[in-house]
Amino acid sequence: MKKDDLETPALLLDINVLQSNIRMMADYLKDKPVKLRPHAKCHKTPIIAHMQVKAGAKGIAVAKLGEAEVMANAGINDVYIANQVVQQSKLERLAALNEYSTVSVAVDNLTVIETLSKIAVKKNVNVKVIEEIDVGLNRCGVPPGKAAIDLAKKIVQLKGLIFEGVMGWEGHAAFMPDLNKRKEECHRCYKKLVETVNEMRREGIEVNTVAAGGTTSFSIAAEYPGINEINPGSYIFMSLMHRLEGVPFKHSLTVLTTVVSRPTKDRAIIDGGVQTFSTFWSYPKPKDLEGVEVKELHMEHGILKLKDPNIDLRVGDKIEFIPAYPDTTINLHDKFYIVRGENVESVWKIGARGRVD
Amino acid sequence: MKKDDLETPALLLDINVLQSNIRMMADYLKDKPVKLRPHAKCHKTPIIAHMQVKAGAKGIAVAKLGEAEVMANAGINDVYIANQVVQQSKLERLAALNEYSTVSVAVDNLTVIETLSKIAVKKNVNVKVIEEIDVGLNRCGVPPGKAAIDLAKKIVQLKGLIFEGVMGWEGHAAFMPDLNKRKEECHRCYKKLVETVNEMRREGIEVNTVAAGGTTSFSIAAEYPGINEINPGSYIFMSLMHRLEGVPFKHSLTVLTTVVSRPTKDRAIIDGGVQTFSTFWSYPKPKDLEGVEVKELHMEHGILKLKDPNIDLRVGDKIEFIPAYPDTTINLHDKFYIVRGENVESVWKIGARGRVD
Repeated sequence: MKKDDLETPALLLDINVLQSNIRMMADYLKDKPVKLRPHAKCHKTPIIAHMQVKAGAKGIAVAKLGEAEVMANAGINDVYIANQVVQQSKLERLAALNEYSTVSVAVDNLTVIETLSKIAVKKNVNVKVIEEIDVGLNRCGVPPGKAAIDLAKKIVQLKGLIFEGVMGWEGHAAFMPDLNKRKEECHRCYKKLVETVNEMRREGIEVNTVAAGGTTSFSIAAEYPGINEINPGSYIFMSLMHRLEGVPFKHSLTVLTTVVSRPTKDRAIIDGGVQTFSTFWSYPKPKDLEGVEVKELHMEHGILKLKDPNIDLRVGDKIEFIPAYPDTTINLHDKFYIVRGENVESVWKIGARGRVD
Repeated sequence: MKKDDLETPALLLDINVLQSNIRMMADYLKDKPVKLRPHAKCHKTPIIAHMQVKAGAKGIAVAKLGEAEVMANAGINDVYIANQVVQQSKLERLAALNEYSTVSVAVDNLTVIETLSKIAVKKNVNVKVIEEIDVGLNRCGVPPGKAAIDLAKKIVQLKGLIFEGVMGWEGHAAFMPDLNKRKEECHRCYKKLVETVNEMRREGIEVNTVAAGGTTSFSIAAEYPGINEINPGSYIFMSLMHRLEGVPFKHSLTVLTTVVSRPTKDRAIIDGGVQTFSTFWSYPKPKDLEGVEVKELHMEHGILKLKDPNIDLRVGDKIEFIPAYPDTTINLHDKFYIVRGENVESVWKIGARGRVD
């Protein structure tokens, strides 16, 4: 089947670019003492997780317990939930997963940790926990320094739990456009993280994992002494918001649409709106079409503005768009159409779409 | 099961309020010469469509062919796709649907209409078409007046098609906060629509349906002479953006979340972000909680600001939110939890979620 025969809107994944992005990351890390645990919340698709593990990743990270279940069920056996899980019934699901797979979890709250410990003991499993440290994003996590060290001391004493290490996500720093400023702010975050880890070790706590770094900070984190795991996700897709200095990956993800109405010379309507494209951060951009931009996205309509009214765009024509943000765009779709050049090679189900549970 | 036992995030639908909203619309229209064809793109759920039809709706409207397939397969037999369908293979699917159900479609392009005519003749079906007229939204549709009349004349001559009538969606007018201004602008739109219909009729064209009106303009449209069908959708849910003067429905839709982290006195983190809440138009608001607002939504985290740092909000506490916009929030979820008071009564699958095809 040819790309242009697809019914639209359709989420396209260019397999050559995807593989090249995965290889590029693996090559970069080959001789470094840093491991890759890519974030799978962006792709939500077991087959892609398996490709990443085959290329050398030590496991994967996910954002939700539901995603972890999908990945564990698909045979990925080292999954880290980089998020807080607190409900009793969810902690039971988490412990149950650990009966046949290794699924670790981020923690920042002693009551939750104690509950998880009791459940793990009852189920006779050991659950790895990673302490989330707030390095400056101001979201979840315990403050670096004393609070983090005190909590770690308590965790190591609890049965059914393995204190695996720490994570600090420098999300507020990772999108600074200027590479030097980004580096500076990331370093400020990593310093807090690594100093806390050093202190933990001085106090006799074993810290295996020290994780940080996303797609726009992967190399900054990987080259910072003391960090031994990075968690980038979007590098495999590289959408609009990741196009920053020092981020070398190429666009593999696009959305194919069809022009469904041409009411005026300067306006064309496509069959994709906010149920097709995430508007998180910005509108999508046409991939190979100059002089055309998205003016508005309604529910199921995209309104394009044609800067040059002589552009020959007809009802039925196809337009491919690069989405602004992969995670939220992929979550709107049920499947990827895998394309190689103009050919559609396969259809991959997005197995964990919507699994925010 | 109690509401508070649900794993979160969970999409809740209060069945009492849903039924009351449906009844309120039916009561309002009882003695009027206007029919209701509610838009199902907001709920995407056959059982709700059946409730609406049982309450007197003449059929339902949808935004996509994929949604029409779900509804027709669930036994809704008068479905109108209030959107342009242009791809050859999709027009074939549309004609095929008409072999066992009545599925009409909006049109604004002669080439597409001629293609549909040929396909319908070949399949030996008659497809009802509704001409979309651009009454001022500047999206799809033909201009009112001569262009619209000329196209109608051509449609009535084509085999396999039934010219059913016209639709004009006054989307740009329907959200004016001031009721009088909203009325004024809606009337301007309806005037163009009805005058065009009158001219069509003078030229001997039979026009059955003259459709306009959404949740914020349903009564303005229903009371405008010449309009005989309204297409509101969100009235059954009534989310934040529909809270305008003259819109009497109550909130039936909420999202239940859990506090997963309490890092500081003035900050709480919930387990719902932009994969749980649509940010289209605005952030969600807590339903029964004063002094707490959504400060940021990340992918899977919601960051709440506590105006009063003495609010006793703990890890594990549940918070219910009213989403800003139902259509795009529901599209992120796979099911409704049907609640009556504090009890969870049923789980309804959102059958057409993601069916943008």
